[in-house]
Amino acid sequence: MAVYTDVTAEDLANFLTRYDIGELLSYKGIAEGVENSNFLVHTSTGTFILTLYEKRVAEGDLPFFLALMEHLAARGITCPQPVKNKEGGMLGRVAGKPAAIVTFLDGLWIRRPNPGHCAALGEALARLHVAGADFPMRRANALSIDNWRPLYEHARPRGDSVQPGLCGEIAKELDALERAWPRALPAGVIHADLFPDNVFFLGNRLSGLIDFYFACTDTLAYDVAICLNAWCFEPDHAYNITKGRALLKAYAKVRALSAEERDALPVLARGAAMRFLLTRLVDWLAVPNGALVKPKDPLEYFRKLRFHRSVRSAADYGFDA
Amino acid sequence: MAVYTDVTAEDLANFLTRYDIGELLSYKGIAEGVENSNFLVHTSTGTFILTLYEKRVAEGDLPFFLALMEHLAARGITCPQPVKNKEGGMLGRVAGKPAAIVTFLDGLWIRRPNPGHCAALGEALARLHVAGADFPMRRANALSIDNWRPLYEHARPRGDSVQPGLCGEIAKELDALERAWPRALPAGVIHADLFPDNVFFLGNRLSGLIDFYFACTDTLAYDVAICLNAWCFEPDHAYNITKGRALLKAYAKVRALSAEERDALPVLARGAAMRFLLTRLVDWLAVPNGALVKPKDPLEYFRKLRFHRSVRSAADYGFDA
Repeated sequence: MAVYTDVTAEDLANFLTRYDIGELLSYKGIAEGVENSNFLVHTSTGTFILTLYEKRVAEGDLPFFLALMEHLAARGITCPQPVKNKEGGMLGRVAGKPAAIVTFLDGLWIRRPNPGHCAALGEALARLHVAGADFPMRRANALSIDNWRPLYEHARPRGDSVQPGLCGEIAKELDALERAWPRALPAGVIHADLFPDNVFFLGNRLSGLIDFYFACTDTLAYDVAICLNAWCFEPDHAYNITKGRALLKAYAKVRALSAEERDALPVLARGAAMRFLLTRLVDWLAVPNGALVKPKDPLEYFRKLRFHRSVRSAADYGFDA
Repeated sequence: MAVYTDVTAEDLANFLTRYDIGELLSYKGIAEGVENSNFLVHTSTGTFILTLYEKRVAEGDLPFFLALMEHLAARGITCPQPVKNKEGGMLGRVAGKPAAIVTFLDGLWIRRPNPGHCAALGEALARLHVAGADFPMRRANALSIDNWRPLYEHARPRGDSVQPGLCGEIAKELDALERAWPRALPAGVIHADLFPDNVFFLGNRLSGLIDFYFACTDTLAYDVAICLNAWCFEPDHAYNITKGRALLKAYAKVRALSAEERDALPVLARGAAMRFLLTRLVDWLAVPNGALVKPKDPLEYFRKLRFHRSVRSAADYGFDA
């Protein structure tokens, strides 16, 4: 749930005079996104999303995110499209916060994706990677392997309170990942957070991708590995190879994975599980007892990590040669 | 901020098959209302609000609220109109909670109402009272004067931690109110919570009244007194008689206040201030230290109460004979 900043009708109406999107008719703070405040805005010309960027998003990164959405939308990726103001800018300020208006996308996110949804996701991910190939800006991944050890050190003093022995296992795994991490695979724009709640469907048709605020320049196959983690496990934490096969096959139809990328899939999947394990662990430890907002369970990704350690090759994910 | 219950797309789409309002296109939890979970729902036929009634709203009261909104809407009051399902019912269940769909109203609420807004509010309040005159159902006010002493007793053990001496002043005031409270004034349907955030405007035109979940059968002039408290004080807690005059004059054009109602206005305004002081005090004391949600300041209404005690007659509120 996320509305951190109160926006008055007067402030918002005033902000909108700088745009050509009509009169303000209504706006509602919406419970979406964890990093920013989001408002659904009705004007006399349509429906839009107003996002206020809160302190967890670096203001210097905003031009990258907004230009990327514009770049992808221009290449046929259905994603929120930043609306330009009368001076051609995409970024303004509301209530003292950096703010942007993007187009609204209809669609629903799927709580229990089936193999058909996973295939649609795989295809969309590959199309995103292809469309991003000529995007000229770069942004380092702030949650790449180089950032995991500092996260671990931050969590270490109380990490074992979540599960005895957790920190020891993470430390060993970090050593292994740092030794084995592939550094020369094809890189480009990755979404880096393409979980089911960031992918909209209308019926069985994928209707949009949202939330590009972790997007960065990194290994493309790592983005695939993130999606295998996010889409292809069952509620009991078992990997569903039918879903994995559907995802990988649909991806490969649009963008073939090289032999090097294929062989790296198990270590990339371990790394992706480690990234979400660590950020969730840090968030978990940061929340005071009795708080209203319950953070996501870090141990879900610990269990996924253990699965990935048992994998022998990409075939175990459903990769067909 | 209020989304207490998670609703899946699958559950909601299934629920909507019982209605004739088209296909589900999107829905967003919105940060509106304190008692319930609210979702803005887009379907192929329009925009609606889905409300899930949480435990603070008594399920037995829902037929009253829904029938009242339907009754008022049929008499030209712009308020959310319950949408009937295919069997003609207005109440269903989503995610295990009682749920209803109502029409969506465009409009913005005004943070700093001017006398023009107060006049529009006064007129709308009187029209609501008139339109409610033939509403056949009754609901006792669960926050009437009879309920204030139990609220006070609940807050008393820690009440003075909010301000030294607070409980002593409340106790004296309760004694005085219980002695002086008028019991024979004209009664009917009152909104009972018509604060600025429950009143929408488009430009200077009042475009809708929302949130009828405190509505009940009680003294009509008490509803006027609630609005004087909610609309006619400045941020520095000074009463603005120009706003009060505008509100009362516009009200009286639609529904004249009798001499008895006029004379009771000061004690009714004291009572209204007491009601919000007490509920805010209880909420304030119930919230754990360090919680994310900050409750509303009870002392705002303590200051208003002191003003009302200094009032000699309705003329001090701007009532023109």
